[in-house]
Amino acid sequence: MTRILILGAGAMGTAFSFPAADAGHTVSLVGTHLDADWIRSVRETRVHPKLKVQLPATVTAYTHNQLGEALRMGADLIVLGVSSAGIPWAIEQLGAAMRDQAPVLLLTKGLEAREEGFQILPEKVRVGLAAAGVANVPVGAVAGPCIAGELAARRDSCVVIGFSDSTLTPGVVSLLATSYYHLFPNADLAGIEACAALKNFYAIAVGYAAGRLAQTGKAENGALMHNLAAAIFAQALVEISVLVHFMGGTEASVTGLAGAGDFYVTCQAGRNSRLGYLLGTGLRYREAKARHMANDTVEGAELALAIGPTLQRLFATGRLAPQTFPLAQAILAAVCDDLPTRIPWIVV
Amino acid sequence: MTRILILGAGAMGTAFSFPAADAGHTVSLVGTHLDADWIRSVRETRVHPKLKVQLPATVTAYTHNQLGEALRMGADLIVLGVSSAGIPWAIEQLGAAMRDQAPVLLLTKGLEAREEGFQILPEKVRVGLAAAGVANVPVGAVAGPCIAGELAARRDSCVVIGFSDSTLTPGVVSLLATSYYHLFPNADLAGIEACAALKNFYAIAVGYAAGRLAQTGKAENGALMHNLAAAIFAQALVEISVLVHFMGGTEASVTGLAGAGDFYVTCQAGRNSRLGYLLGTGLRYREAKARHMANDTVEGAELALAIGPTLQRLFATGRLAPQTFPLAQAILAAVCDDLPTRIPWIVV
Repeated sequence: MTRILILGAGAMGTAFSFPAADAGHTVSLVGTHLDADWIRSVRETRVHPKLKVQLPATVTAYTHNQLGEALRMGADLIVLGVSSAGIPWAIEQLGAAMRDQAPVLLLTKGLEAREEGFQILPEKVRVGLAAAGVANVPVGAVAGPCIAGELAARRDSCVVIGFSDSTLTPGVVSLLATSYYHLFPNADLAGIEACAALKNFYAIAVGYAAGRLAQTGKAENGALMHNLAAAIFAQALVEISVLVHFMGGTEASVTGLAGAGDFYVTCQAGRNSRLGYLLGTGLRYREAKARHMANDTVEGAELALAIGPTLQRLFATGRLAPQTFPLAQAILAAVCDDLPTRIPWIVV
Repeated sequence: MTRILILGAGAMGTAFSFPAADAGHTVSLVGTHLDADWIRSVRETRVHPKLKVQLPATVTAYTHNQLGEALRMGADLIVLGVSSAGIPWAIEQLGAAMRDQAPVLLLTKGLEAREEGFQILPEKVRVGLAAAGVANVPVGAVAGPCIAGELAARRDSCVVIGFSDSTLTPGVVSLLATSYYHLFPNADLAGIEACAALKNFYAIAVGYAAGRLAQTGKAENGALMHNLAAAIFAQALVEISVLVHFMGGTEASVTGLAGAGDFYVTCQAGRNSRLGYLLGTGLRYREAKARHMANDTVEGAELALAIGPTLQRLFATGRLAPQTFPLAQAILAAVCDDLPTRIPWIVV
């Protein structure tokens, strides 16, 4: 019998328990210290408030202080579904409690700023676990367009999956594949992780067009601002592509599920687009956040704050050509410096 | 004084007269024999029924039999805004009436099937004009996300522009740039033209997801089918990328305005998406077309019919690997063979 342990019982971590259970495995869903209400709900009703679907019978919910207990029952695969802010906590917890070298699979998206570049989260986890005494853990990640509520509703979802040691990928693919969850092996872990993180950042810029439309109104002939949104979408994909190359990734990840696919779905809705919308209406970042999204984590804005100083350093030293990044510069100015949002080509 | 002649008074040809006139030029808008009602409307009301905006004062409308007269007044740039089906007619008309070698700029999108590949329309026009005795005409094209109604409403629109002789591009860019029409030179004419044509074809597949959603309904938790639409979007972009390379184009065109940008806007609305929607509800192509879109030209379906046999030949001979093109195969089966639409990864 295969056991899969998911750490992090937010929408995505919990949604992942559906294909894991439907593929025939026993699933331990372990909440973080912030997930206590959700774990209680799952225990009492079998329903996660964010997903609104009955969990499969082979999923057992655990609170954060039961992680050791859940691990002692065995875990052939450990899945990390915490937020990017929760990664250090997850490393600490797993470092203390892990007994063997089960592969770790990240659902969490983000980038860690370094002096001269960026570190992908699987690498951060691998290094962190090794420092905690759990060496040689293979760490991989899933990326691609996968809204949690749709996965939990067992709707067709296609993702890419990669491990630093890509010989591991086929085994994990066959472990998780179901009739509705379609996993495609991808050897470009750096590329897919860069895409997965950056799509949130750039979705802010695409959302801006909708906000600007709300501010400006329809034209006399009913025209909207699809041309502007699409131009920003394309410019964003070009900038993502340059950053992916800078991080050692390949173009195929940019045009595929992790890049264009996930970026497309992220621009259709969600908190990053919503923040962009608010900026497009003319609000500044701090006011938009405080007045309209005070309790929301906007991952693209968190990423801007985390990697902004490094990006600016790379622009200043010419390691990245600043003129190649008009959108990144606009988002950094808006989020990090709280300046009015000025998307290029627009004379406001 | 610079004169710009636009041949084709449909929505896009007419919309192009706005930046052309606003950039300070005198514009001759010449309808085809199919545009007679529109030309009459423009003459009587100064409004094109598809655009619903007053045309600039420096635009003069001509009927198709006045093309010679309009050309005799001079034309420093000739813009082709006819449909792809109208290209042979336009070549014939221009071949007979053109006096000098003014550059020709295509707004028309399409691909011409050849035994072993595809010809882009600027090349078809160049060869056709030469055969008609008008040699050495530089032919270029505009591509990118540009809904005609938004351009006519003077909303920010970003496009790429290229000529077979790329030294011509900067001059035409400076001729046409206005505060709302932003042109970016692109030397990859083959790539931008392949993207511009193929986006219509692949938008049918993305539209399929919305039709399938309408057929299936929301999930019990309210989940839609964004994951599926996004996966199809990404797979389409990957297939477009392979075809662009096959045609000698470059990856940068695929991630940029002509590729991802135009594809994004095409998937938001329009006739190609609408056909895909109908196929997604379970209708076959002929029935969908006859019952719901009898009077519409669906450019993506026209392209499927035009290039389908060549694509199948390239698959059969292995010049293109068929397994790389699951979506193209699905669209060809649906449109050319009138079979039920079967998008991969879906067990219907």
